[in-house]
Amino acid sequence: MTVRKFAIADAEFERSPGQEAEIYAGNLLDERHGGPVTIGFGRYEPNQSLEVTIAVHDTMIVIEGEVSVTTGDGTVTAGAGEIVSMQTGDKVLIRSHSKGALTGYVTYPHWRTAS
Amino acid sequence: MTVRKFAIADAEFERSPGQEAEIYAGNLLDERHGGPVTIGFGRYEPNQSLEVTIAVHDTMIVIEGEVSVTTGDGTVTAGAGEIVSMQTGDKVLIRSHSKGALTGYVTYPHWRTAS
Repeated sequence: MTVRKFAIADAEFERSPGQEAEIYAGNLLDERHGGPVTIGFGRYEPNQSLEVTIAVHDTMIVIEGEVSVTTGDGTVTAGAGEIVSMQTGDKVLIRSHSKGALTGYVTYPHWRTAS
Repeated sequence: MTVRKFAIADAEFERSPGQEAEIYAGNLLDERHGGPVTIGFGRYEPNQSLEVTIAVHDTMIVIEGEVSVTTGDGTVTAGAGEIVSMQTGDKVLIRSHSKGALTGYVTYPHWRTAS
């Protein structure tokens, strides 16, 4: 493996598994490539929500719009250039707001083969 | 550990080790917190460069400006919202351009204790 660059236009988005919201994930580096982490982009239509127990260490950076993440401890809201870190086992409600959102994500280990 | 949010204003920047360029890193989650990855922000003044052998799997997302990464295989240049993935052992030249750059990074394992 070597240095790679990824842009949102490279991603093939698919609905985030196990839910019906208009929230999509597009992996660009993952278990198929032999490295330790999965890298991709997320796309959230406006006012969508997703309740999930995080299966991996999931780092999300907001590129456009805003994303809120709620747990039993409260809610954090991240805008462009801000990062949200979630840990294995966290039960979270992830929400987009009126403008939707674009995010980049890095998971360790690979989210698709972890659950 | 639980859900955390990080903004650039939270980072305490220090010069990237082993070099004299105006390139700074600010860890916000790392080996002190017990998780598997280091998360932080990078700040590049204009027209700086850094030659380094990558000790970890390093994912960089550009928040502002542009960053170029050159290896023996060529150069990739990433702008806002784009991601560069570097692997352990890659020998890279990282450069900023006329506007400098802000980046977010995720390393696995922790870069500070890996080299």
